[in-house]
Amino acid sequence: MRIATVEATPNIAVVKYWGKRDNKIILPMEGSQSFTIDSLKTRTTVMFSDKFKEDEFWLNNKKVDLTDKEIAERMQQLNIIRERAGITLKAKIVSINCFPTAAGFASSASGLAALACAASRAAGLNLSAKELSILARLGSGSACRSVVGGFVEWHKGTKEDGSDSFAETIYPANHWPELRLVSAVLAEGKKKVSSRAGMKQTVATSVLYTARLAYLPTLLKEMREAVGRKDFAKFAELTMRESNNMHATMLDTWPPIMYLNDLSKQVIYAVGELNANEIKAAYTFDAGPNAHIYTLEKNVPEVKRMLEGINGVQKVIVSKIGNGPVYLEQEREHLIDPKTGNVREHYYDEKANLIVIKEDEK
Amino acid sequence: MRIATVEATPNIAVVKYWGKRDNKIILPMEGSQSFTIDSLKTRTTVMFSDKFKEDEFWLNNKKVDLTDKEIAERMQQLNIIRERAGITLKAKIVSINCFPTAAGFASSASGLAALACAASRAAGLNLSAKELSILARLGSGSACRSVVGGFVEWHKGTKEDGSDSFAETIYPANHWPELRLVSAVLAEGKKKVSSRAGMKQTVATSVLYTARLAYLPTLLKEMREAVGRKDFAKFAELTMRESNNMHATMLDTWPPIMYLNDLSKQVIYAVGELNANEIKAAYTFDAGPNAHIYTLEKNVPEVKRMLEGINGVQKVIVSKIGNGPVYLEQEREHLIDPKTGNVREHYYDEKANLIVIKEDEK
Repeated sequence: MRIATVEATPNIAVVKYWGKRDNKIILPMEGSQSFTIDSLKTRTTVMFSDKFKEDEFWLNNKKVDLTDKEIAERMQQLNIIRERAGITLKAKIVSINCFPTAAGFASSASGLAALACAASRAAGLNLSAKELSILARLGSGSACRSVVGGFVEWHKGTKEDGSDSFAETIYPANHWPELRLVSAVLAEGKKKVSSRAGMKQTVATSVLYTARLAYLPTLLKEMREAVGRKDFAKFAELTMRESNNMHATMLDTWPPIMYLNDLSKQVIYAVGELNANEIKAAYTFDAGPNAHIYTLEKNVPEVKRMLEGINGVQKVIVSKIGNGPVYLEQEREHLIDPKTGNVREHYYDEKANLIVIKEDEK
Repeated sequence: MRIATVEATPNIAVVKYWGKRDNKIILPMEGSQSFTIDSLKTRTTVMFSDKFKEDEFWLNNKKVDLTDKEIAERMQQLNIIRERAGITLKAKIVSINCFPTAAGFASSASGLAALACAASRAAGLNLSAKELSILARLGSGSACRSVVGGFVEWHKGTKEDGSDSFAETIYPANHWPELRLVSAVLAEGKKKVSSRAGMKQTVATSVLYTARLAYLPTLLKEMREAVGRKDFAKFAELTMRESNNMHATMLDTWPPIMYLNDLSKQVIYAVGELNANEIKAAYTFDAGPNAHIYTLEKNVPEVKRMLEGINGVQKVIVSKIGNGPVYLEQEREHLIDPKTGNVREHYYDEKANLIVIKEDEK
């Protein structure tokens, strides 16, 4: 049966990926590090079949135009998978995000990681984590970090073909069981500059970017060590300063890129106050205003209270560190009916936090 | 008569001063450039007299505590002036700012420049612009640029005693008569971090700051050339990128310094739109959220309309390029009665934009 369904989750970087040395196969200027989280998953079903006349991609119940150049670039792994599996069958891909598709939540990371895992499995390939990471990377750089769990490092690699630019688990999810991520949704709506276009501009124009690059290898090493010995205070300072550093090079970009807003600033100040006597929380911001706050289990209530005290915080989501993609083996969990090849009617029930597949209800 | 009254105006930097190599006598890490403007003046009267038992300083009709360590540091030029003039008389200083003392308007630059000019004149000294600039610098770095007019450069100097760290006019005020500054008051209230404390933190902690320093000599040269040939488009791009660059190193400071707010960002975006077809405006932000926009006379109405269209812009002030401090020679313009040594009742009439001295009304 040429069908597979995978659930993958986002990763929230503590050492950020911002800048490519190769735009086509997505090779980064430097390494990066993240934790894969256990919530906000994307479920993706891929089916290859001679029933299909053309490739089809449904995302959140909307058909995506695969002839769009940018989309086609993001889906380039599909042809590589077919080639490697020696098949020419057309694919149907159905994907749904179990989280608000708001600015700042990287649905591309979980989405492209789920696609790599589901498509290669459906094609009959049995790939290593490294191979999956490279496939996911072709769709979205940070997706390569979501094919594995725990504390993950994306090695920048040096080869031109990208064969040594992949992510791997440095410490598994259970290495630091007390670690939590508290995410605050601050604003919905589309961001002004896509991260893909933005990082290209930064590399091309920022005067400060070279200093960031020079500093990153040291940071990666210090972060690895801080996580290794579960030194929260050190981890927190490195994480916050690194987030600021990336957003600083964004501001130094021409034209400037500004993802942080007044609410983000309020969170930054509030975390500063929370940490006055003892370091309890570490903020980090991606290419959007939403705040992600790493903390320890015992401090989650305090961090939540802090966030809920800020007028404008729309939602707070608490995550643990996740184990990476999960392969769903039950027939009824596929978003495509394996017999007919039809998309099953489905939706994400946000309240219950689960995917409802309509045919199940009959 | 040991009394003198001087009016000085702020300068708005296009290449910013952010970082000292000597905190006591205020020597900068790099050179900076600004235009002295013709509005938002500070009037300061200094009188030396044996009637006075101690130094006294009145600012905006409030007595300032000269025993405060920070204030004493800012007033260190007073003793140097006395020493140089060979007098030991106590001084009365009365100063009033003719502009909203809101965050982001550098009253310290006009104030300390006026003090240097008035105090040295009252003490009977006849100092060169260079000597005055050095005296003003001791009180507030950027004040050294307000003792002269036009397009001004503060040379960083290399000597330890600071004798070669002073500002001078590169192009006089009439070099570019069409140039205007449109300032937008975005928010009142005290800023979170003083620039004095902030820049110290940046030098100590920012990873990106060294890249800024490495870039500044080139920028100073390019800016000098752009202003020299009155190339507004080039001048504008350099100015905006430099402002972003400084605020980027502030964000990269630990803890982070964030002066720009959502309104500042709105101005940045609005200027970007205004410049879409032709470069008409250049924003620059100091250590506060208020926007200063350089433009040409013909574009002032459009820039004003743009600013007045932003909800939250409280006031718009248009300035020309100024000639530097003005010595007021008429007896009735002194803020101190030369006969009695008493402070004259005075206030700033914001509507009429003039200083009213009560005794004049009798």
